[in-house]
Amino acid sequence: MEQELPQDPGKQPLRELIESGAYEALAERLPEEHVQDIAHALEDFEPNMVLEVFGMLPGEERPEVFSYLDPPQQYQILSAADDELGIPLLRGLSADDRTSLLEDLKPEQLQEILRLLSPAEVRHAMEQLGYPEQSAGRLMNTEFVTVRPNWSLARALDHIRRQGEKGDGVNTLYVTDHRGRLQGTISLKRLVLEKPDKEVQSLISGPPVSIDAGESRNEAARAIQHYDITALPVVDSHGVLLGAVTVDDVMDVVEEEATEDFHKLGGVGVVGLSLRDARPSLLYRKRVGWLVLLVFMNIFGGAGIAYFEATIEAVIALVFFLPLIVDSGGNAGSQSATLMVRALAIGDVMARDWLRLWGKELGVAIALGLTMGVAVYGLGLWRGGAEVATVVSLSMVLVVAFGSMIGMVLPLLLNRFGFDPATASAPLITSIADICGILIYFSIATALLTIPAV
Amino acid sequence: MEQELPQDPGKQPLRELIESGAYEALAERLPEEHVQDIAHALEDFEPNMVLEVFGMLPGEERPEVFSYLDPPQQYQILSAADDELGIPLLRGLSADDRTSLLEDLKPEQLQEILRLLSPAEVRHAMEQLGYPEQSAGRLMNTEFVTVRPNWSLARALDHIRRQGEKGDGVNTLYVTDHRGRLQGTISLKRLVLEKPDKEVQSLISGPPVSIDAGESRNEAARAIQHYDITALPVVDSHGVLLGAVTVDDVMDVVEEEATEDFHKLGGVGVVGLSLRDARPSLLYRKRVGWLVLLVFMNIFGGAGIAYFEATIEAVIALVFFLPLIVDSGGNAGSQSATLMVRALAIGDVMARDWLRLWGKELGVAIALGLTMGVAVYGLGLWRGGAEVATVVSLSMVLVVAFGSMIGMVLPLLLNRFGFDPATASAPLITSIADICGILIYFSIATALLTIPAV
Repeated sequence: MEQELPQDPGKQPLRELIESGAYEALAERLPEEHVQDIAHALEDFEPNMVLEVFGMLPGEERPEVFSYLDPPQQYQILSAADDELGIPLLRGLSADDRTSLLEDLKPEQLQEILRLLSPAEVRHAMEQLGYPEQSAGRLMNTEFVTVRPNWSLARALDHIRRQGEKGDGVNTLYVTDHRGRLQGTISLKRLVLEKPDKEVQSLISGPPVSIDAGESRNEAARAIQHYDITALPVVDSHGVLLGAVTVDDVMDVVEEEATEDFHKLGGVGVVGLSLRDARPSLLYRKRVGWLVLLVFMNIFGGAGIAYFEATIEAVIALVFFLPLIVDSGGNAGSQSATLMVRALAIGDVMARDWLRLWGKELGVAIALGLTMGVAVYGLGLWRGGAEVATVVSLSMVLVVAFGSMIGMVLPLLLNRFGFDPATASAPLITSIADICGILIYFSIATALLTIPAV
Repeated sequence: MEQELPQDPGKQPLRELIESGAYEALAERLPEEHVQDIAHALEDFEPNMVLEVFGMLPGEERPEVFSYLDPPQQYQILSAADDELGIPLLRGLSADDRTSLLEDLKPEQLQEILRLLSPAEVRHAMEQLGYPEQSAGRLMNTEFVTVRPNWSLARALDHIRRQGEKGDGVNTLYVTDHRGRLQGTISLKRLVLEKPDKEVQSLISGPPVSIDAGESRNEAARAIQHYDITALPVVDSHGVLLGAVTVDDVMDVVEEEATEDFHKLGGVGVVGLSLRDARPSLLYRKRVGWLVLLVFMNIFGGAGIAYFEATIEAVIALVFFLPLIVDSGGNAGSQSATLMVRALAIGDVMARDWLRLWGKELGVAIALGLTMGVAVYGLGLWRGGAEVATVVSLSMVLVVAFGSMIGMVLPLLLNRFGFDPATASAPLITSIADICGILIYFSIATALLTIPAV
């Protein structure tokens, strides 16, 4: 993806105006900018600088701009602002944005911020924080408009007008019974287009799509993608409507999930933060575990070499081909693992497809191995003669085929036993394939070569 | 992510009913299922089977179910259906879905399908296929409702009611001047909530966010994410409104882009198809290039080893540590590359941040290297005595630090010079780090060890 949003080339970036403290130019410029762009320009600035810019914005735009900042920056700003400025900023956040601000705070920070809310708002925030991390309940917005099934469309429309701006989700209306249980959804569009004397329930089609508040946010993302809807109702175990997860939140979830899988596949613990903001100590911790673990795995590779020391000492030319052969197995394995991990993550393949996939991968793996074997035969001939060439190309076939199979099978097995298939990181697959590669290569060499007496 | 959508445990999956040909049970079941679920259940079935099920659906539901199938399956069904059934299926598709069906067809297939459309629809389809691949123009839906800035809200609402069901995007209304140039957008919600005698233009806030039809679909995805909107207007070079890209299409783009980056990072050519459907020959072609390229790169590793053959022959114990040290550099490198490639892709870091990132990475890399050096010192002592232990741990520090730096710098450089940073695949980084590792390790060994005379 590209890095920057398109920008009018004639204009000085907002960011530079803020940096240089050009307040007059800023005052002229801010009214023609979108709130999202103002927020984007304010990223990484000190709270005092941000508050300065907020002072130049009309009161009703401040909470909007504020809502597009990252939670850590939001917290800094609230800490630095006096209550008069801070209260409307915090109260202007929608319930889901407020939850994502509060959920990462330390207890003493949480107290400091909750002080700015009314008792009812505090209770509400604590309720939402009570849902499991990464659940639909944490992600949902709790402001929504409900209508009753037996109302006429005219009455429903009237009700919506009275409720006014409440809720993002007013494009979708939720139909509930007298106990608040979800009966279905109707779109504002249908409501406007149909005759006003129709009953609300005549517009409901089929059973409502909804999700339990305790279910994972991934599940919510999948349902929204699958049903092509812009808002997914969230219910409790009795079917009572609690809120709705909207498509814009879900898009962030899809992106975050992909990032997590990337990090796992690359053999890094999941770095939840922005790479730019993550402290070195966090990055160190997220990486050192895998590295140390893999070193100890590679001892087996070393042991394999030690076991064949006599062969190596006799035909030292074999060592020349060691990186070639061993790396090829690892590379083929990480290719397979990448394809498989991603296909499992997006639901493109299921564990039940394994037999079919296995057969196909075996075919591809052997074809790749043969190609590679032919590719290195000449090299073997040149460096070590016909015998070495045979050993090298035969090893190559087997190592590449074997590496591919490991890369394919390991994610499937992990998935089958309830683990995240992305745990089969590329470095892990590479290391396993390397050990197998060393054993295969030197075994074949020992078996086929005429070892000269030392 | 999870693999299956939640399903009522008491019910037999729709798929099984279709498979077993239980038509009576199906006829009972279909009316209570969502069209998306029916489409999902029909995946991979033969066209005749699908047409059988279509026969059991009410006429107006067929195009809806059809629209949720994959383009290759849609084509098969249209080929198998008679015109009476096929025409409404194809005409029922929205413009964007129709484009994604047509864009992958071979010329003779295209002719076969275009025959089902009216001349006006054919012209329209060809126009949309005229935009570059992966552009906003290809992705946009071209059915939308426009209103004029000087209309009253009452008149606008009346106009929408007359236009009826036209366009997905009726939650967003596009305000255009008499030449069709985009003036702004207003939401249906605002239109309904505000007083009917207000003018349309009073509801437009700020300059309209829009995108050129020729811009990439990634750009469109970024704009929708950034501005948190559900539909992005697409315009031509004169600002004339052509259509709109909607958030549900963009969500698929975000997922596809992540998949592409995954494949590149794993050293696989981009497999555009589903892994399940991709033919082995395609998978072979997508993988063999990198594998062969990397073999020839690894010849340098082999050459490095050959250069130090005397050292190796003298202290054969050194070979034991070769996989350990060399792999650690590769692993550290692929960790860094993964973090960097993903951060660049989601716009978390920009090329201009390089100095700060470089400093941070250097710190992390040295800390990781020291940890690893300490971890293998004991191992070196045990296998080869104090001298070898010093060589091994010193090499480890340098190799890990060096590998990390390569993994970080290469994606940044690629990005800087306009290439896709994901081209710096994990296998590529691993191979480069391996070569450097071999050179560093044996150079240190040759310099520090007392080589016994042979």
